[in-house]
Amino acid sequence: MTPLSAVHPPNPIVSTHILGIDIGGTKLAVGVSTAQGKLLSSERIPTNSSEGPDRVLARLAEVCHRVIDKAGVKVDGAGVGCVGPLDQKTGYVIDPVNLPGWKKVPLVDTLKHHLKMPVFLDNDANAAALGEHRFGAGRGMANMVYLTISTGIGGGIIINHQLYQGENGNAGELGHMSVNFAGRPCGCGNVGCIEAYASGTAIAARTREAVKASGTSDSALLLSIAGTIEQINGQAVVEAVRRGDPLACRVWDETIVALGSCMVSVIHIFNPRRIVLGGGISNAGDLLFVPLRKQTKKHSMPMLHDICDIVPAELGDQVGVLGAVAVGLDGLARANS
Amino acid sequence: MTPLSAVHPPNPIVSTHILGIDIGGTKLAVGVSTAQGKLLSSERIPTNSSEGPDRVLARLAEVCHRVIDKAGVKVDGAGVGCVGPLDQKTGYVIDPVNLPGWKKVPLVDTLKHHLKMPVFLDNDANAAALGEHRFGAGRGMANMVYLTISTGIGGGIIINHQLYQGENGNAGELGHMSVNFAGRPCGCGNVGCIEAYASGTAIAARTREAVKASGTSDSALLLSIAGTIEQINGQAVVEAVRRGDPLACRVWDETIVALGSCMVSVIHIFNPRRIVLGGGISNAGDLLFVPLRKQTKKHSMPMLHDICDIVPAELGDQVGVLGAVAVGLDGLARANS
Repeated sequence: MTPLSAVHPPNPIVSTHILGIDIGGTKLAVGVSTAQGKLLSSERIPTNSSEGPDRVLARLAEVCHRVIDKAGVKVDGAGVGCVGPLDQKTGYVIDPVNLPGWKKVPLVDTLKHHLKMPVFLDNDANAAALGEHRFGAGRGMANMVYLTISTGIGGGIIINHQLYQGENGNAGELGHMSVNFAGRPCGCGNVGCIEAYASGTAIAARTREAVKASGTSDSALLLSIAGTIEQINGQAVVEAVRRGDPLACRVWDETIVALGSCMVSVIHIFNPRRIVLGGGISNAGDLLFVPLRKQTKKHSMPMLHDICDIVPAELGDQVGVLGAVAVGLDGLARANS
Repeated sequence: MTPLSAVHPPNPIVSTHILGIDIGGTKLAVGVSTAQGKLLSSERIPTNSSEGPDRVLARLAEVCHRVIDKAGVKVDGAGVGCVGPLDQKTGYVIDPVNLPGWKKVPLVDTLKHHLKMPVFLDNDANAAALGEHRFGAGRGMANMVYLTISTGIGGGIIINHQLYQGENGNAGELGHMSVNFAGRPCGCGNVGCIEAYASGTAIAARTREAVKASGTSDSALLLSIAGTIEQINGQAVVEAVRRGDPLACRVWDETIVALGSCMVSVIHIFNPRRIVLGGGISNAGDLLFVPLRKQTKKHSMPMLHDICDIVPAELGDQVGVLGAVAVGLDGLARANS
């Protein structure tokens, strides 16, 4: 028996080079990286998913070859982070909301055909968690939980230095933990998911509802930033909070309570060393982290709270490609073990 | 690197025998078991914790020696499941609510001194989870989550066949996941914990509140079972639900909604193969499991829901001792690896 405590992160050969491929609904990002997460070359192009998977993937493969040529190194394998749902075992993309028309696309086999190298796939949130763990804010942490707070909320769980996949590769849907069994309906079919309160989309929707309910008297600043009620988005709310708009601040306070509740549950469940928050909303910085840490401390058990910190992600715009690189490195290490 | 998927449960030597010790607030249970979970001898005595740890542990040691003699085998080590909080590293008991006056008790060292064998310790919920995984409802499951719904709610997480301990041994406090950030206060300091809704204590408290709020007109049956409002306990509520008491049924329905929300979150977080429910409230049987499964299915993602079942624990009254045996077996396997 190998106890979990003796399981360490992969120790890649220093000279390994990995192609990282980030497939999103609006853009494709590709890069060649060392095993230490140093990008040697990279490129971004629009996805244009409506062209259909065949044409998009052929275009993607061209970019891959160009990026490899630019890096001037031998590439040992590729990692892909892609919007889900995916079937990990077969390497198929299963009809993601953000890639309309991509039904049962054999992504791994198609890329293997184009690239002639081993290809490893995971969903974008898991890839980002792995990227932050290998190269970013989670380096060296045995037990870490990552959440990306963006249009939606995604998550990834690192246990004993490794990504926890669950029974069929779908663990870590942390955006769909409920924080209120009698709360807001979520697009996933559940009730009160944290995504229905604290994603950029949900913050904007809750703010629009609040403006409509209470009138515009205490949201003049917010509306001057956003334009119209309909134009209110997550970034506008954050900016209005920064400048002290009363209504935006009330919505933000409730967001902190909901997100704090989620952090407390994550701490009580996982007893992690660190929680890493990425995604657009995490760019709010101290406006988010200072009250969130206070709220979390107030409600969590000291023995668990006191060894866990909540920190911003470090990889910024590179998290897509570097997350994919981490997926590739892990895949190669598993294949060679 | 050893991938998690290649990590298997310990494969104990067939002839191993373990002493299992279950230390609860009201009783001590001790047994000698084979590595396959077959009890050869066992005994129970009252804890009488007010005697103080020295006298209680000396009495416990006497029982251990008697049980070992009765089994007539060589015992290789002992496992202990004890009410927490504990300090795993030092083997100390840290002032549990249910063992008043037991402040910083060196439990492992004291038992080693009395028993002259290796002693391994974990909290009672983790021990029960491990026991159900090795010998009960979770046999052979790589990824399983266990909850005991009793006076309180405790939990244990099995990941890749092993108990997940977290950063400092406190992972799996599943009773203190919040299911409502604006909900009932919990004794732990958090708000809306599932323990504050669905533990036996909470079900009784919520029922008493409902009777006081709505009068006794629709709870005549419940009161005939319990006696007085103050005498309402979890078992009385379950019995009243079984016999169709309208008020008890309303409280039970809300309990199912809260517990279902917790199940959905557990499924979305862990993507487990199985959720095992033990503890006194789980003895409600179909009254609990049938509506809970329906509620869980309604709100969880099909890809995750469809590979996960929710089943009753199997070890019944033996879970304390057999959980402790599993802790001992795991400890020995780690020590010998």
